[in-house]
Amino acid sequence: MKIALLQTPVDFDKEKNLDLACKAIREAAQHGAALVILPEMFCCPYSTRYFADYAEPAGGHIWQTLSASARENNICLVGGSFPEWEDGRIYNTCFVFGPDGKQIARHRKMHLFNVEFDGGQHFRESDTFTPGEDVTTFRYGDLTFGLCICFDMRFPELSRLMTLQGAQAIIVPAAFNMTTGPLHWETMFRQRAVDDQAYTIGIAPARDEQGVYVSYANSILCDPMGQVLTRAGTQSCILYGELDAGQVDSARRQLPLLSARRTDIYTLK
Amino acid sequence: MKIALLQTPVDFDKEKNLDLACKAIREAAQHGAALVILPEMFCCPYSTRYFADYAEPAGGHIWQTLSASARENNICLVGGSFPEWEDGRIYNTCFVFGPDGKQIARHRKMHLFNVEFDGGQHFRESDTFTPGEDVTTFRYGDLTFGLCICFDMRFPELSRLMTLQGAQAIIVPAAFNMTTGPLHWETMFRQRAVDDQAYTIGIAPARDEQGVYVSYANSILCDPMGQVLTRAGTQSCILYGELDAGQVDSARRQLPLLSARRTDIYTLK
Repeated sequence: MKIALLQTPVDFDKEKNLDLACKAIREAAQHGAALVILPEMFCCPYSTRYFADYAEPAGGHIWQTLSASARENNICLVGGSFPEWEDGRIYNTCFVFGPDGKQIARHRKMHLFNVEFDGGQHFRESDTFTPGEDVTTFRYGDLTFGLCICFDMRFPELSRLMTLQGAQAIIVPAAFNMTTGPLHWETMFRQRAVDDQAYTIGIAPARDEQGVYVSYANSILCDPMGQVLTRAGTQSCILYGELDAGQVDSARRQLPLLSARRTDIYTLK
Repeated sequence: MKIALLQTPVDFDKEKNLDLACKAIREAAQHGAALVILPEMFCCPYSTRYFADYAEPAGGHIWQTLSASARENNICLVGGSFPEWEDGRIYNTCFVFGPDGKQIARHRKMHLFNVEFDGGQHFRESDTFTPGEDVTTFRYGDLTFGLCICFDMRFPELSRLMTLQGAQAIIVPAAFNMTTGPLHWETMFRQRAVDDQAYTIGIAPARDEQGVYVSYANSILCDPMGQVLTRAGTQSCILYGELDAGQVDSARRQLPLLSARRTDIYTLK
């Protein structure tokens, strides 16, 4: 399955961001991508100051635009994330649409990013967001995908649970910063791929040094043995990659980690 | 706390291996190390063909030699591992001795290494070994240590359980091979350190290209933010490092991962 990772820039202008995303989706589809992925907060500046203003409900304008784009381009679209408004609460939510434009999955970020680095980044998502409550997997083509958002991927419990639910590839719209990115981004995607013997896919916004949030960018695709197949730089770009269920089977056969877990001694559920 | 990682060579001659280990322990103690660690199978060729012949019970000659060495050098000694014989079964076991020579911990490898790489390494530990049944932690000085052996560290469940039992540093006598070493060794130690916000310490035998088993070597110490503090090459050597409980606290305060786990949604026990 050919996939495309859209490392798009994020501006203050929501419509401009959406237009750019739709153009990138079209380009990726024209290049043969069957599944296309947008970054976390692809149409909203990544700051607790803006999430409420940019929030929209499921079925609203952003949702409709993504649904239409999936249908018009005949692709599966993993819609990065945007602030989702529901009943007075705001979630950091990723919607997934099939080639017919129907929603086939939804993930609400379930681990909120609250950090306070000495002399570095401070961020408290929990001031604004309500966390999601569900582990998310979905089926498309001949593959089962796990789906989580950025900080969610920090927790090996979650990636393991997605894997035990059948995930062969784990998709992570994300936006690491300039502290955590250089320290942890690549190592995390590589090791989760090794541990869960699955493709791991991180999709980040392009870097804007003058932006309200400076994204580490470096969108990445790792194979089920933990090798980096492709990795972006900091600029706006589209990365292409191939997912092959046979590679997942091969890793799990040669190095039988999932089956060697001591489930008689520990249980994760 | 100053620690020493002894990357010793392994020969067919058990006594020679033990002598070399004791000399390295003495040197490390003379350089001020308070805790000294030997590699997996430091006195037995790493091959299922030899484990039964080299096996000894707890309290036997190898055990006594290690106990005496800890006492004579007034250190805590993490005795790598050797084939431990008990009631007709053989375990891959690490014994830990306090400065008074008394055994303070024992870990029996609980995940056995059975792999079959296409065109690469084949190994079936389970043909010879019985797996251990216990998660192992111990206290020394002002630190709590987790202890596991090589393939055990492949399983994020185990390192997490050790961490939840209080581990601030995870010690792993190990012997990755020339397939898994270049692919996975450093990434694994770095990511486990990040996930569990603990020091991770991998101690491997020196490389012998003509040996029955070619160890990847590259003994390593990572800090609780996943940075490599020190790393050996392939030769016989002693690596020194400092462990500081304050660094563990600092990582866990700045990037609160352990406390941000969604234990209302998943449980590991």
